[in-house]
Amino acid sequence: MPRYALKIEYDGTPFSGWQRQSHRPSVQGAIEAALARLEADVPSIAAAGRTDAGVHALGQVAHCELRKDWEPFRLTQALNYHLKPAPVAVIDCARVEDDFHARFSAIERRYLFRLVARRAPMTLELGRVWQVPHPLDLAPMRAAAAHLVGRHDFTTFRASICQAKSPVKTIDALEIEETGFPGGQEFRFRLRARSFLHNQVRSIVGTLERVGAGAWSPGQVRAALDARDRAACGPVCPPHGLYLAAVGYGRDPFAGA
Amino acid sequence: MPRYALKIEYDGTPFSGWQRQSHRPSVQGAIEAALARLEADVPSIAAAGRTDAGVHALGQVAHCELRKDWEPFRLTQALNYHLKPAPVAVIDCARVEDDFHARFSAIERRYLFRLVARRAPMTLELGRVWQVPHPLDLAPMRAAAAHLVGRHDFTTFRASICQAKSPVKTIDALEIEETGFPGGQEFRFRLRARSFLHNQVRSIVGTLERVGAGAWSPGQVRAALDARDRAACGPVCPPHGLYLAAVGYGRDPFAGA
Repeated sequence: MPRYALKIEYDGTPFSGWQRQSHRPSVQGAIEAALARLEADVPSIAAAGRTDAGVHALGQVAHCELRKDWEPFRLTQALNYHLKPAPVAVIDCARVEDDFHARFSAIERRYLFRLVARRAPMTLELGRVWQVPHPLDLAPMRAAAAHLVGRHDFTTFRASICQAKSPVKTIDALEIEETGFPGGQEFRFRLRARSFLHNQVRSIVGTLERVGAGAWSPGQVRAALDARDRAACGPVCPPHGLYLAAVGYGRDPFAGA
Repeated sequence: MPRYALKIEYDGTPFSGWQRQSHRPSVQGAIEAALARLEADVPSIAAAGRTDAGVHALGQVAHCELRKDWEPFRLTQALNYHLKPAPVAVIDCARVEDDFHARFSAIERRYLFRLVARRAPMTLELGRVWQVPHPLDLAPMRAAAAHLVGRHDFTTFRASICQAKSPVKTIDALEIEETGFPGGQEFRFRLRARSFLHNQVRSIVGTLERVGAGAWSPGQVRAALDARDRAACGPVCPPHGLYLAAVGYGRDPFAGA
Protein backbone atom coordinates (compact mmCIF):
# COMPACT_ATOMS: atom_id res chain seq x y z
CA MET A 1 0.00 0.00 0.00
CA PRO A 2 1.31 3.49 -0.82
CA ARG A 3 2.62 5.24 2.28
CA TYR A 4 2.42 8.98 2.96
CA ALA A 5 4.12 11.28 5.43
CA LEU A 6 1.91 14.07 6.75
CA LYS A 7 3.15 17.27 8.39
CA ILE A 8 0.45 18.38 10.80
CA GLU A 9 -0.29 21.58 12.70
CA TYR A 10 -2.84 21.69 15.51
CA ASP A 11 -4.25 23.66 18.37
CA GLY A 12 -4.13 21.12 21.21
CA THR A 13 -6.76 22.91 23.34
CA PRO A 14 -9.81 20.77 22.53
CA PHE A 15 -7.95 17.44 22.46
CA SER A 16 -7.04 14.89 25.10
CA GLY A 17 -3.70 14.63 23.29
CA TRP A 18 -2.39 13.00 20.13
CA GLN A 19 -3.31 9.43 21.00
CA ARG A 20 -6.68 7.98 20.09
CA GLN A 21 -8.95 7.32 23.07
CA SER A 22 -12.34 5.70 22.99
CA HIS A 23 -14.56 8.47 24.36
CA ARG A 24 -12.47 11.63 24.17
CA PRO A 25 -11.43 13.74 21.19
CA SER A 26 -7.84 13.20 20.05
CA VAL A 27 -5.76 14.51 17.17
CA GLN A 28 -5.07 10.98 15.94
CA GLY A 29 -8.79 10.23 16.07
CA ALA A 30 -9.61 13.39 14.07
CA ILE A 31 -7.11 12.51 11.33
CA GLU A 32 -8.16 8.86 11.21
CA ALA A 33 -11.79 9.94 10.90
CA ALA A 34 -10.83 12.18 7.94
CA LEU A 35 -8.89 9.28 6.34
CA ALA A 36 -11.93 7.04 6.81
CA ARG A 37 -13.89 9.45 4.63
CA LEU A 38 -11.45 8.71 1.81
CA GLU A 39 -11.09 4.93 2.02
CA ALA A 40 -12.56 2.09 4.06
CA ASP A 41 -10.47 0.19 6.61
CA VAL A 42 -7.52 2.59 6.73
CA PRO A 43 -4.84 1.23 9.12
CA SER A 44 -4.23 3.33 12.23
CA ILE A 45 -1.57 6.03 11.90
CA ALA A 46 1.64 6.65 13.84
CA ALA A 47 3.17 10.01 14.85
CA ALA A 48 6.65 11.15 15.79
CA GLY A 49 5.53 12.70 19.08
CA ARG A 50 2.59 11.56 21.18
CA THR A 51 1.77 15.00 22.54
CA ASP A 52 -0.17 15.31 25.80
CA ALA A 53 -3.55 16.96 26.29
CA GLY A 54 -3.38 20.69 25.54
CA VAL A 55 0.00 20.54 23.77
CA HIS A 56 0.11 22.15 20.33
CA ALA A 57 2.02 21.23 17.18
CA LEU A 58 3.54 23.38 14.45
CA GLY A 59 5.11 20.44 12.64
CA GLN A 60 4.01 17.04 13.95
CA VAL A 61 4.78 14.24 11.49
CA ALA A 62 2.66 11.12 11.03
CA HIS A 63 2.49 8.47 8.35
CA CYS A 64 -0.49 6.66 6.90
CA GLU A 65 -1.15 3.97 4.33
CA LEU A 66 -3.85 4.14 1.69
CA ARG A 67 -4.91 1.75 -1.03
CA LYS A 68 -5.26 4.34 -3.75
CA ASP A 69 -2.25 6.12 -5.22
CA TRP A 70 -3.09 9.64 -4.09
CA GLU A 71 -1.42 12.70 -5.53
CA PRO A 72 -0.02 14.33 -2.31
CA PHE A 73 -1.53 17.74 -3.03
CA ARG A 74 -4.99 16.23 -3.56
CA LEU A 75 -4.64 14.08 -0.45
CA THR A 76 -3.79 17.19 1.59
CA GLN A 77 -6.79 19.05 0.23
CA ALA A 78 -9.14 16.13 0.87
CA LEU A 79 -7.90 15.62 4.44
CA ASN A 80 -8.13 19.32 5.30
CA TYR A 81 -11.66 19.38 3.88
CA HIS A 82 -12.77 16.48 6.07
CA LEU A 83 -10.88 17.72 9.15
CA LYS A 84 -12.98 20.89 9.34
CA PRO A 85 -13.92 22.38 11.75
CA ALA A 86 -11.34 20.70 14.02
CA PRO A 87 -8.28 22.95 14.53
CA VAL A 88 -6.02 20.43 12.77
CA ALA A 89 -4.42 21.03 9.37
CA VAL A 90 -2.18 19.00 7.10
CA ILE A 91 0.45 21.52 5.99
CA ASP A 92 2.60 19.19 3.91
CA CYS A 93 2.33 15.68 2.46
CA ALA A 94 4.70 13.40 0.57
CA ARG A 95 4.87 9.84 -0.78
CA VAL A 96 7.47 7.92 1.24
CA GLU A 97 9.19 4.52 1.06
CA ASP A 98 7.54 1.58 2.80
CA ASP A 99 10.26 1.57 5.48
CA PHE A 100 9.60 5.17 6.53
CA HIS A 101 8.11 5.29 10.03
CA ALA A 102 7.12 8.70 11.42
CA ARG A 103 8.17 7.69 14.92
CA PHE A 104 11.00 5.19 14.53
CA SER A 105 12.72 6.89 11.58
CA ALA A 106 12.83 10.26 13.40
CA ILE A 107 16.29 11.35 14.51
CA GLU A 108 15.39 14.72 16.03
CA ARG A 109 12.50 16.43 17.79
CA ARG A 110 12.29 20.19 18.35
CA TYR A 111 10.00 21.70 20.95
CA LEU A 112 9.10 25.32 21.59
CA PHE A 113 7.79 26.50 24.95
CA ARG A 114 6.27 29.96 25.29
CA LEU A 115 6.28 31.53 28.76
CA VAL A 116 4.83 35.01 29.37
CA ALA A 117 5.60 36.97 32.53
CA ARG A 118 3.04 39.67 33.18
CA ARG A 119 0.36 40.43 35.71
CA ALA A 120 -2.55 41.26 33.40
CA PRO A 121 -4.51 38.23 32.13
CA MET A 122 -3.89 36.91 28.62
CA THR A 123 -6.32 37.90 25.86
CA LEU A 124 -5.09 37.11 22.34
CA GLU A 125 -2.59 34.49 23.54
CA LEU A 126 -4.88 32.74 26.01
CA GLY A 127 -4.24 28.98 25.81
CA ARG A 128 -1.15 29.61 23.68
CA VAL A 129 1.37 30.46 26.44
CA TRP A 130 2.01 29.66 30.09
CA GLN A 131 1.56 32.83 32.09
CA VAL A 132 3.22 33.72 35.40
CA PRO A 133 2.41 37.00 37.18
CA HIS A 134 5.97 37.91 38.26
CA PRO A 135 8.99 39.12 36.26
CA LEU A 136 11.71 36.62 35.31
CA ASP A 137 15.45 37.00 34.88
CA LEU A 138 16.90 35.56 31.68
CA ALA A 139 20.59 35.20 32.64
CA PRO A 140 20.18 32.69 35.51
CA MET A 141 17.68 30.65 33.47
CA ARG A 142 20.31 30.40 30.71
CA ALA A 143 22.99 29.46 33.25
CA ALA A 144 20.75 26.72 34.66
CA ALA A 145 19.82 25.48 31.18
CA ALA A 146 23.51 25.03 30.33
CA HIS A 147 23.71 22.32 33.03
CA LEU A 148 21.02 20.30 31.23
CA VAL A 149 22.52 20.31 27.73
CA GLY A 150 24.33 17.10 26.75
CA ARG A 151 23.93 13.45 27.72
CA HIS A 152 22.48 12.93 31.21
CA ASP A 153 20.34 10.65 33.29
CA PHE A 154 17.11 12.70 33.31
CA THR A 155 15.27 10.66 35.97
CA THR A 156 14.58 13.93 37.84
CA PHE A 157 12.86 15.45 34.82
CA ARG A 158 10.74 12.47 33.84
CA ALA A 159 7.08 11.65 34.55
CA SER A 160 6.57 8.73 36.89
CA ILE A 161 4.43 7.11 34.18
CA CYS A 162 7.18 7.48 31.53
CA GLN A 163 7.58 4.24 29.59
CA ALA A 164 11.04 4.83 28.07
CA LYS A 165 13.49 2.01 28.74
CA SER A 166 16.30 4.32 29.80
CA PRO A 167 16.25 7.73 31.54
CA VAL A 168 19.45 8.67 29.71
CA LYS A 169 18.88 11.22 26.95
CA THR A 170 20.98 13.77 25.10
CA ILE A 171 19.70 17.32 24.85
CA ASP A 172 21.45 18.85 21.84
CA ALA A 173 20.21 22.38 22.43
CA LEU A 174 18.25 24.30 25.06
CA GLU A 175 18.08 27.93 24.05
CA ILE A 176 16.09 30.67 25.75
CA GLU A 177 15.25 33.90 23.99
CA GLU A 178 13.52 36.91 25.59
CA THR A 179 11.19 38.85 23.31
CA GLY A 180 8.91 41.81 23.81
CA PHE A 181 5.36 41.21 25.00
CA PRO A 182 2.77 43.96 25.66
CA GLY A 183 2.92 44.85 29.35
CA GLY A 184 5.43 42.10 30.20
CA GLN A 185 8.10 39.72 28.95
CA GLU A 186 7.99 36.61 26.79
CA PHE A 187 10.54 33.81 26.99
CA ARG A 188 10.82 31.25 24.21
CA PHE A 189 12.51 27.99 25.17
CA ARG A 190 13.74 25.94 22.20
CA LEU A 191 14.78 22.36 22.94
CA ARG A 192 16.27 19.88 20.51
CA ALA A 193 17.02 16.18 21.09
CA ARG A 194 16.80 12.85 19.29
CA SER A 195 13.94 12.03 21.65
CA PHE A 196 12.52 13.20 24.95
CA LEU A 197 11.17 11.47 28.05
CA HIS A 198 7.53 11.86 29.02
CA ASN A 199 7.00 15.33 30.54
CA GLN A 200 10.70 16.13 30.16
CA VAL A 201 10.22 19.52 28.50
CA ARG A 202 7.52 20.62 30.94
CA SER A 203 9.58 19.43 33.91
CA ILE A 204 12.61 21.35 32.66
CA VAL A 205 10.73 24.57 31.87
CA GLY A 206 8.85 24.43 35.18
CA THR A 207 12.17 24.15 37.00
CA LEU A 208 13.87 26.88 34.95
CA GLU A 209 10.98 29.22 35.70
CA ARG A 210 11.77 28.84 39.39
CA VAL A 211 15.33 29.93 38.58
CA GLY A 212 14.08 32.94 36.59
CA ALA A 213 11.89 33.92 39.54
CA GLY A 214 14.88 33.78 41.89
CA ALA A 215 13.54 30.89 43.98
CA TRP A 216 16.21 28.45 42.75
CA SER A 217 19.86 29.03 41.85
CA PRO A 218 21.34 27.56 38.64
CA GLY A 219 23.47 25.31 40.87
CA GLN A 220 20.34 23.84 42.45
CA VAL A 221 19.19 22.73 38.99
CA ARG A 222 22.53 20.97 38.53
CA ALA A 223 22.07 19.32 41.94
CA ALA A 224 18.50 18.28 41.03
CA LEU A 225 19.77 16.65 37.82
CA ASP A 226 22.52 14.86 39.73
CA ALA A 227 20.01 13.63 42.33
CA ARG A 228 18.32 11.40 39.69
CA ASP A 229 15.19 11.65 41.80
CA ARG A 230 11.78 12.72 40.54
CA ALA A 231 11.14 14.42 43.90
CA ALA A 232 14.03 16.83 43.21
CA CYS A 233 12.25 18.29 40.17
CA GLY A 234 10.63 21.73 40.24
CA PRO A 235 6.91 22.04 39.45
CA VAL A 236 5.89 20.60 36.07
CA CYS A 237 4.48 23.50 34.05
CA PRO A 238 1.12 23.40 32.23
CA PRO A 239 0.87 22.01 28.68
CA HIS A 240 -0.63 24.95 26.82
CA GLY A 241 2.70 26.78 26.28
CA LEU A 242 4.23 23.72 24.62
CA TYR A 243 4.53 23.21 20.85
CA LEU A 244 6.02 20.25 18.97
CA ALA A 245 7.84 22.51 16.51
CA ALA A 246 9.53 20.11 14.10
CA VAL A 247 10.67 16.53 13.55
CA GLY A 248 13.91 15.67 11.76
CA TYR A 249 14.72 12.61 9.62
CA GLY A 250 17.91 11.36 8.00
CA ARG A 251 16.38 12.45 4.71
CA ASP A 252 13.62 15.07 4.89
CA PRO A 253 10.53 13.31 3.50
CA PHE A 254 9.07 16.69 2.48
CA ALA A 255 12.19 18.01 0.74
CA GLY A 256 10.98 17.14 -2.73
CA ALA A 257 7.45 18.39 -2.17
CA MET B 1 -11.99 64.12 39.30
CA PRO B 2 -8.72 62.18 38.99
CA ARG B 3 -8.09 61.08 35.40
CA TYR B 4 -6.37 57.87 34.34
CA ALA B 5 -4.89 56.66 31.09
CA LEU B 6 -5.38 52.94 30.44
CA LYS B 7 -3.36 50.85 27.99
CA ILE B 8 -5.62 48.05 26.81
CA GLU B 9 -5.10 44.77 24.96
CA TYR B 10 -8.00 42.81 23.51
CA ASP B 11 -9.07 40.01 21.26
CA GLY B 12 -11.64 41.71 19.04
CA THR B 13 -13.35 38.46 17.97
CA PRO B 14 -16.39 38.52 20.28
CA PHE B 15 -16.97 42.28 20.06
CA SER B 16 -18.91 44.48 17.68
CA GLY B 17 -15.98 46.89 17.92
CA TRP B 18 -14.65 49.39 20.42
CA GLN B 19 -17.71 51.62 20.55
CA ARG B 20 -20.53 50.95 22.99
CA GLN B 21 -23.77 49.74 21.38
CA SER B 22 -27.05 49.10 23.11
CA HIS B 23 -27.57 45.39 22.42
CA ARG B 24 -24.20 44.09 21.25
CA PRO B 25 -21.00 43.43 23.18
CA SER B 26 -18.32 46.10 22.76
CA VAL B 27 -14.90 46.66 24.28
CA GLN B 28 -15.93 50.07 25.59
CA GLY B 29 -19.02 48.51 27.16
CA ALA B 30 -16.93 45.79 28.84
CA ILE B 31 -14.54 48.33 30.37
CA GLU B 32 -17.31 50.68 31.43
CA ALA B 33 -19.11 47.75 33.10
CA ALA B 34 -15.90 46.95 35.02
CA LEU B 35 -15.53 50.61 36.05
CA ALA B 36 -19.16 50.62 37.22
CA ARG B 37 -18.23 47.84 39.67
CA LEU B 38 -15.74 50.24 41.27
CA GLU B 39 -17.76 53.46 41.47
CA ALA B 40 -21.29 54.60 40.65
CA ASP B 41 -21.99 56.97 37.75
CA VAL B 42 -18.60 56.73 36.06
CA PRO B 43 -18.51 59.02 33.00
CA SER B 44 -18.16 57.26 29.65
CA ILE B 45 -14.63 56.65 28.46
CA ALA B 46 -12.83 57.73 25.27
CA ALA B 47 -10.26 55.77 23.26
CA ALA B 48 -7.56 56.72 20.77
CA GLY B 49 -8.85 54.37 18.07
CA ARG B 50 -12.44 53.29 17.59
CA THR B 51 -11.60 49.84 16.23
CA ASP B 52 -14.17 48.02 14.08
CA ALA B 53 -15.79 44.65 14.83
CA GLY B 54 -13.19 41.87 14.89
CA VAL B 55 -10.18 44.21 15.07
CA HIS B 56 -7.71 43.46 17.89
CA ALA B 57 -5.58 45.75 20.04
CA LEU B 58 -2.13 45.30 21.53
CA GLY B 59 -1.96 48.83 22.91
CA GLN B 60 -5.23 50.72 22.68
CA VAL B 61 -5.27 53.78 24.96
CA ALA B 62 -8.36 55.12 26.72
CA HIS B 63 -8.90 57.55 29.55
CA CYS B 64 -11.40 57.49 32.38
CA GLU B 65 -12.34 59.64 35.34
CA LEU B 66 -13.02 58.32 38.82
CA ARG B 67 -13.98 60.01 42.05
CA LYS B 68 -11.61 58.13 44.27
CA ASP B 69 -7.86 58.65 44.06
CA TRP B 70 -6.86 55.16 42.89
CA GLU B 71 -3.34 53.88 43.04
CA PRO B 72 -2.77 52.91 39.34
CA PHE B 73 -1.57 49.38 40.14
CA ARG B 74 -4.63 48.68 42.29
CA LEU B 75 -6.95 50.17 39.66
CA THR B 76 -5.41 47.87 37.02
CA GLN B 77 -5.86 44.83 39.25
CA ALA B 78 -9.46 45.74 40.08
CA LEU B 79 -10.40 46.35 36.44
CA ASN B 80 -8.79 43.12 35.25
CA TYR B 81 -10.62 41.24 37.99
CA HIS B 82 -13.99 42.62 36.91
CA LEU B 83 -13.24 42.27 33.17
CA LYS B 84 -12.97 38.49 33.44
CA PRO B 85 -13.78 36.39 31.44
CA ALA B 86 -13.90 38.92 28.58
CA PRO B 87 -10.69 38.81 26.51
CA VAL B 88 -9.81 42.39 27.48
CA ALA B 89 -6.91 43.31 29.77
CA VAL B 90 -5.56 46.57 31.15
CA ILE B 91 -1.81 46.20 30.66
CA ASP B 92 -0.76 49.63 31.96
CA CYS B 93 -2.36 52.49 33.88
CA ALA B 94 -1.21 55.97 34.89
CA ARG B 95 -2.59 59.13 36.53
CA VAL B 96 -2.73 61.89 33.90
CA GLU B 97 -3.42 65.61 33.82
CA ASP B 98 -7.00 66.79 33.39
CA ASP B 99 -6.23 67.99 29.86
CA PHE B 100 -5.07 64.56 28.68
CA HIS B 101 -7.49 63.09 26.15
CA ALA B 102 -6.80 59.59 24.83
CA ARG B 103 -8.13 60.50 21.40
CA PHE B 104 -7.43 64.20 20.94
CA SER B 105 -4.00 64.25 22.59
CA ALA B 106 -2.75 61.35 20.44
CA ILE B 107 -0.17 62.32 17.83
CA GLU B 108 0.50 58.88 16.36
CA ARG B 109 -1.27 55.56 15.74
CA ARG B 110 0.51 52.35 14.80
CA TYR B 111 -1.31 49.45 13.22
CA LEU B 112 -0.12 45.93 12.50
CA PHE B 113 -1.79 43.73 9.88
CA ARG B 114 -0.99 40.01 9.71
CA LEU B 115 -1.55 38.26 6.38
CA VAL B 116 -0.81 34.56 5.95
CA ALA B 117 -0.48 32.97 2.51
CA ARG B 118 -1.01 29.22 2.63
CA ARG B 119 -3.51 26.70 1.39
CA ALA B 120 -4.08 24.68 4.58
CA PRO B 121 -6.66 26.17 6.96
CA MET B 122 -5.52 28.10 10.04
CA THR B 123 -5.48 26.30 13.39
CA LEU B 124 -3.59 28.15 16.15
CA GLU B 125 -3.85 31.51 14.38
CA LEU B 126 -7.50 31.24 13.39
CA GLY B 127 -9.14 34.67 13.81
CA ARG B 128 -5.70 36.26 14.32
CA VAL B 129 -4.62 36.62 10.69
CA TRP B 130 -6.16 37.13 7.27
CA GLN B 131 -5.50 34.03 5.21
CA VAL B 132 -5.23 33.79 1.44
CA PRO B 133 -4.64 30.43 -0.30
CA HIS B 134 -2.08 31.59 -2.91
CA PRO B 135 1.56 32.66 -2.56
CA LEU B 136 2.42 36.37 -2.51
CA ASP B 137 5.43 38.27 -3.74
CA LEU B 138 6.98 40.73 -1.29
CA ALA B 139 8.93 43.01 -3.65
CA PRO B 140 5.99 44.38 -5.71
CA MET B 141 3.94 44.88 -2.52
CA ARG B 142 6.78 46.98 -1.13
CA ALA B 143 7.05 48.94 -4.38
CA ALA B 144 3.31 49.65 -4.31
CA ALA B 145 3.41 50.60 -0.63
CA ALA B 146 6.09 53.19 -1.36
CA HIS B 147 3.54 55.12 -3.46
CA LEU B 148 1.25 55.46 -0.44
CA VAL B 149 3.77 56.81 2.05
CA GLY B 150 3.59 60.58 2.63
CA ARG B 151 0.81 63.15 2.45
CA HIS B 152 -1.97 62.25 0.02
CA ASP B 153 -5.67 62.54 -0.62
CA PHE B 154 -6.75 59.02 0.43
CA THR B 155 -10.33 59.22 -0.88
CA THR B 156 -9.72 55.92 -2.73
CA PHE B 157 -8.76 54.13 0.48
CA ARG B 158 -11.57 55.43 2.70
CA ALA B 159 -14.89 53.89 3.70
CA SER B 160 -17.92 55.59 2.22
CA ILE B 161 -19.22 56.06 5.78
CA CYS B 162 -15.96 57.73 6.95
CA GLN B 163 -16.74 60.84 8.98
CA ALA B 164 -13.34 62.57 8.79
CA LYS B 165 -13.55 66.17 7.56
CA SER B 166 -10.69 65.76 5.11
CA PRO B 167 -9.48 62.75 3.09
CA VAL B 168 -5.92 64.13 3.24
CA LYS B 169 -3.68 62.14 5.59
CA THR B 170 0.04 61.57 6.00
CA ILE B 171 1.30 58.01 6.26
CA ASP B 172 4.67 58.22 7.99
CA ALA B 173 5.61 54.57 7.48
CA LEU B 174 4.22 51.52 5.69
CA GLU B 175 6.64 48.65 6.13
CA ILE B 176 6.11 45.06 5.06
CA GLU B 177 8.12 42.23 6.53
CA GLU B 178 7.98 38.59 5.41
CA THR B 179 8.41 35.99 8.14
CA GLY B 180 8.31 32.22 8.23
CA PHE B 181 4.98 30.48 8.76
CA PRO B 182 4.47 26.69 8.86
CA GLY B 183 3.53 25.54 5.38
CA GLY B 184 3.33 29.06 3.96
CA GLN B 185 4.36 32.69 4.28
CA GLU B 186 3.41 35.45 6.70
CA PHE B 187 3.50 39.15 5.84
CA ARG B 188 3.39 41.76 8.57
CA PHE B 189 2.30 45.22 7.47
CA ARG B 190 3.22 48.01 9.90
CA LEU B 191 1.57 51.38 9.33
CA ARG B 192 2.22 54.60 11.23
CA ALA B 193 0.36 57.92 10.94
CA ARG B 194 -0.97 60.72 13.10
CA SER B 195 -4.43 59.38 12.32
CA PHE B 196 -6.14 57.15 9.79
CA LEU B 197 -9.38 57.33 7.83
CA HIS B 198 -12.13 54.77 8.45
CA ASN B 199 -11.14 51.45 6.80
CA GLN B 200 -7.93 53.01 5.48
CA VAL B 201 -5.62 50.23 6.67
CA ARG B 202 -7.88 47.42 5.48
CA SER B 203 -8.39 49.17 2.11
CA ILE B 204 -4.63 49.55 1.68
CA VAL B 205 -3.75 45.98 2.73
CA GLY B 206 -6.54 44.53 0.57
CA THR B 207 -5.16 46.43 -2.42
CA LEU B 208 -1.53 45.51 -1.70
CA GLU B 209 -2.51 41.83 -1.48
CA ARG B 210 -3.75 42.08 -5.08
CA VAL B 211 -0.28 43.38 -6.00
CA GLY B 212 1.42 40.52 -4.13
CA ALA B 213 -0.78 38.04 -5.99
CA GLY B 214 0.23 39.55 -9.33
CA ALA B 215 -3.26 40.80 -10.21
CA TRP B 216 -2.28 44.47 -9.90
CA SER B 217 0.97 46.25 -10.69
CA PRO B 218 2.53 48.75 -8.25
CA GLY B 219 1.77 51.46 -10.82
CA GLN B 220 -1.94 50.61 -10.70
CA VAL B 221 -1.91 51.35 -6.96
CA ARG B 222 -0.40 54.76 -7.72
CA ALA B 223 -3.11 55.33 -10.33
CA ALA B 224 -5.82 54.23 -7.87
CA LEU B 225 -4.52 56.72 -5.29
CA ASP B 226 -4.45 59.49 -7.90
CA ALA B 227 -8.00 58.66 -9.00
CA ARG B 228 -9.36 59.85 -5.60
CA ASP B 229 -12.28 57.55 -6.21
CA ARG B 230 -13.52 54.88 -3.80
CA ALA B 231 -14.41 52.68 -6.78
CA ALA B 232 -10.70 52.52 -7.74
CA CYS B 233 -9.82 50.72 -4.47
CA GLY B 234 -9.01 47.02 -4.33
CA PRO B 235 -11.09 44.74 -2.11
CA VAL B 236 -11.21 45.78 1.57
CA CYS B 237 -9.66 42.93 3.55
CA PRO B 238 -11.31 41.33 6.61
CA PRO B 239 -10.80 42.82 10.10
CA HIS B 240 -9.34 39.85 11.98
CA GLY B 241 -5.75 40.37 10.79
CA LEU B 242 -5.74 43.97 12.08
CA TYR B 243 -4.24 45.10 15.39
CA LEU B 244 -4.10 48.59 16.89
CA ALA B 245 -0.49 48.17 17.99
CA ALA B 246 0.32 51.45 19.78
CA VAL B 247 -0.72 55.05 20.30
CA GLY B 248 1.80 57.88 20.65
CA TYR B 249 1.52 61.08 22.68
CA GLY B 250 3.71 64.17 22.96
CA ARG B 251 4.67 62.88 26.38
CA ASP B 252 4.16 59.15 27.03
CA PRO B 253 1.56 58.98 29.84
CA PHE B 254 2.93 55.58 30.89
CA ALA B 255 6.61 56.57 30.94
CA GLY B 256 6.71 57.08 34.69
CA ALA B 257 4.73 53.94 35.48
